[in-house]
Amino acid sequence: MSTFDCVIIGGGPGGYVAAIRAAQLGLKTALVEREHMGGQCLNWGCIPSKALMESAKFYDRLSLAKTFGIDGVDPAALHFNWKKAIARKDKIVLKLVRGVEFLMKKNRVEVLKGEAALEGLGRVRVGERLLETKNVLIATGAVPEGSALDGLPAGLVKSVPEFFALDGLPAEIVVWGANGAACETALMLRLSGHSVRLAAPSQRLLGFLDQDLQDYIQKRMHKLGIPVQLNLKRPLATSDGLLQLGNETVPCQLLVNCADRQAVLPALGELSPRLDERGFLLVDEYGRTSLPGVYAAGDVTGLLWAQAASAQGTAAVSHMAGQEHPVDVTNIPVNLYLNPEIASVGMTEEQVKELGLPYRKGEFSLSVNGKALAEGNTEGFVKVLATEPYGEVVGVHVVASNATDLISEAVAHMKLEATLEDIAGVIHAHPTLSEAFWEASFDALERPLHK
Amino acid sequence: MSTFDCVIIGGGPGGYVAAIRAAQLGLKTALVEREHMGGQCLNWGCIPSKALMESAKFYDRLSLAKTFGIDGVDPAALHFNWKKAIARKDKIVLKLVRGVEFLMKKNRVEVLKGEAALEGLGRVRVGERLLETKNVLIATGAVPEGSALDGLPAGLVKSVPEFFALDGLPAEIVVWGANGAACETALMLRLSGHSVRLAAPSQRLLGFLDQDLQDYIQKRMHKLGIPVQLNLKRPLATSDGLLQLGNETVPCQLLVNCADRQAVLPALGELSPRLDERGFLLVDEYGRTSLPGVYAAGDVTGLLWAQAASAQGTAAVSHMAGQEHPVDVTNIPVNLYLNPEIASVGMTEEQVKELGLPYRKGEFSLSVNGKALAEGNTEGFVKVLATEPYGEVVGVHVVASNATDLISEAVAHMKLEATLEDIAGVIHAHPTLSEAFWEASFDALERPLHK
Repeated sequence: MSTFDCVIIGGGPGGYVAAIRAAQLGLKTALVEREHMGGQCLNWGCIPSKALMESAKFYDRLSLAKTFGIDGVDPAALHFNWKKAIARKDKIVLKLVRGVEFLMKKNRVEVLKGEAALEGLGRVRVGERLLETKNVLIATGAVPEGSALDGLPAGLVKSVPEFFALDGLPAEIVVWGANGAACETALMLRLSGHSVRLAAPSQRLLGFLDQDLQDYIQKRMHKLGIPVQLNLKRPLATSDGLLQLGNETVPCQLLVNCADRQAVLPALGELSPRLDERGFLLVDEYGRTSLPGVYAAGDVTGLLWAQAASAQGTAAVSHMAGQEHPVDVTNIPVNLYLNPEIASVGMTEEQVKELGLPYRKGEFSLSVNGKALAEGNTEGFVKVLATEPYGEVVGVHVVASNATDLISEAVAHMKLEATLEDIAGVIHAHPTLSEAFWEASFDALERPLHK
Repeated sequence: MSTFDCVIIGGGPGGYVAAIRAAQLGLKTALVEREHMGGQCLNWGCIPSKALMESAKFYDRLSLAKTFGIDGVDPAALHFNWKKAIARKDKIVLKLVRGVEFLMKKNRVEVLKGEAALEGLGRVRVGERLLETKNVLIATGAVPEGSALDGLPAGLVKSVPEFFALDGLPAEIVVWGANGAACETALMLRLSGHSVRLAAPSQRLLGFLDQDLQDYIQKRMHKLGIPVQLNLKRPLATSDGLLQLGNETVPCQLLVNCADRQAVLPALGELSPRLDERGFLLVDEYGRTSLPGVYAAGDVTGLLWAQAASAQGTAAVSHMAGQEHPVDVTNIPVNLYLNPEIASVGMTEEQVKELGLPYRKGEFSLSVNGKALAEGNTEGFVKVLATEPYGEVVGVHVVASNATDLISEAVAHMKLEATLEDIAGVIHAHPTLSEAFWEASFDALERPLHK
């Protein structure tokens, strides 16, 4: 029987980042992965969706070539080649998966291929092997639930991996879901010239975002020609190959399942860690579950962002090694790769109001930002929320072509408990999109610059 | 005679931003501009060069269309249309100039068109009008010197405004200069399919940057096919329409003058403020010149960055209003719009060494960053320098597609005197380019993640 300080179940960004850190902390570490290193994020989520989105954005952008001063692009000749875009995506994913495999070797993490099952505390079975370990980190992820799609014709509904494996795309596509993955998938399809609609049981599209961002996205979807149908119980197939979505009947040859995700748990034997009402593992700020020596990180805990997974995993293995680095969930940015991108950190305006905090806000539109104009990326705005009387920044919400990078400055400021005056004192390079964050802070201070 | 609290000479980012702030501080303010609001930056510098660079980058990017999965772009049919790219640039510039004009009105800044001349302390003449004022802010900018180009055939040498006014571009172009404007101009021409070389009297290309960045840029220019000739006294025209650059004779139908800039001073009458050895106005951290009630900001002080100009101008009018907000020049980022972009803040490694400070450094290449791979923007790296024993970050140097935005997080950290551990504790959205800065910090802490 092999003995470890730490056995990690799951090779996604919750598991593999934790494995690297665990090894650096001197823990003898094993990682069990049943499919591909990198997990959902690297193989079917964050990375492939962004690679495909870049292809789609490129295709969409070509309609502006003439405006930019480029002659000779014939719109009628253009064709989005799904197979080639997928081939590019595959290449990127493979490079990164190989990279993670290399990092496991470099850090002397033992990687076991197979299904892990807990056989009591401190015992993990992987096929024939029984591992004894001081601690376990469960980072097994989550998968779209999608039972509302049961009963639809075979071949119509595709999971994301099945969708990626298609040789080509049909004329009419429905994406099932109202979360980030669903919105990104729909937008990628639309920008690459496909007819697509979003349908979901949810009440709202991306309901966790600040209302101003939700409103923006709804308008944007409408403008791009992506119909959105919410509050749907389940889609029904009619006899003539159409799909009934509530009161509407629409053509549909492909339905991509991006339903909200449910936890994937390893076999737990007699162990029964506490779960929340949705079935996700309950953890504290060190990633500890209710069971001694059993930690969890990532999607399986209900925090469905890769960066949260890595942070939780790192906090967990640090705790195993006797170091206290609790995860501060209030400072985890969220990021969506729409076009423009969306990113947020901290409280929404609705949350600030609900807490009854006196606050001020500042906003700035990218439509008058010099770099945004130069790039032709003038869609979007930055919104900053700060509490009175000190002007401490408590929420930043960004819609911008590179919002997911712009948010990093806001997270840094919030982590260091910066005030609006602190931000005003940070000189921003000109011309940059980051100036919009600065300008929003000036606006909140009631001394706007370019507004 | 009109009486003001503050008369600002020059409507560039040093002058007009100061005017807005002055008005907000309750100062009765006039701004004198002899040509266009927005100055060099808006009309012939930062903004137009970025607008043209975006056209050039777009044109260059089209060679990758097939790889991204886009069929139907015929490389042989493509043509960079200079007139159309210029027309797009003009539209953007006009919008921003109109914006600044609007801001002057909104903030009740009196704008005077014409040449300003100081007639003693507190007296500024603009044509027929004599303005009496408590304070003057000189923000008159700088222009390329270029006397080395005297004697070349008429029509061969063009200033940047003349270059922008050309109907089309010839086959062989030389850009004279080794500074940011020169490198950006050469790169824009190269990416848009032109044959171009850089030539300058300087010893080094962008010699103010960290040596690793200089080395990178030199290699990049070489790879893109832009010959660079330095240490040249002056170009000589030969009888047969060729240009002699040192030992080389090259074809050249256009030479764009991007020589290093010299201060443009208003007529000063009997006043003689202190100048540095290069002829720029000497100022302290509040923008004060050696003359009472006379401040200066921007290029005319030798700090040749728009963001420095705005910061100095703001510091100056704040000081006029009795507020002390000194400019901290150690935290002014610098930014270059090459492809990829370049940005830096704080000390270079050479400066840290020269000071004899014990330090550690971290580096991270974009070639293994997930978002960079997805975007196809894997050129570049991030370098972080931190002093021992606390790991205080003292320099950050970035080569990346959006380096000029990425630097904002580094500036924020440095302004708040963050350590490497502080940065390590800031959760970065995944996948983003900003993770590369994070990874470089982990690398400096000797616990690299994806390296």
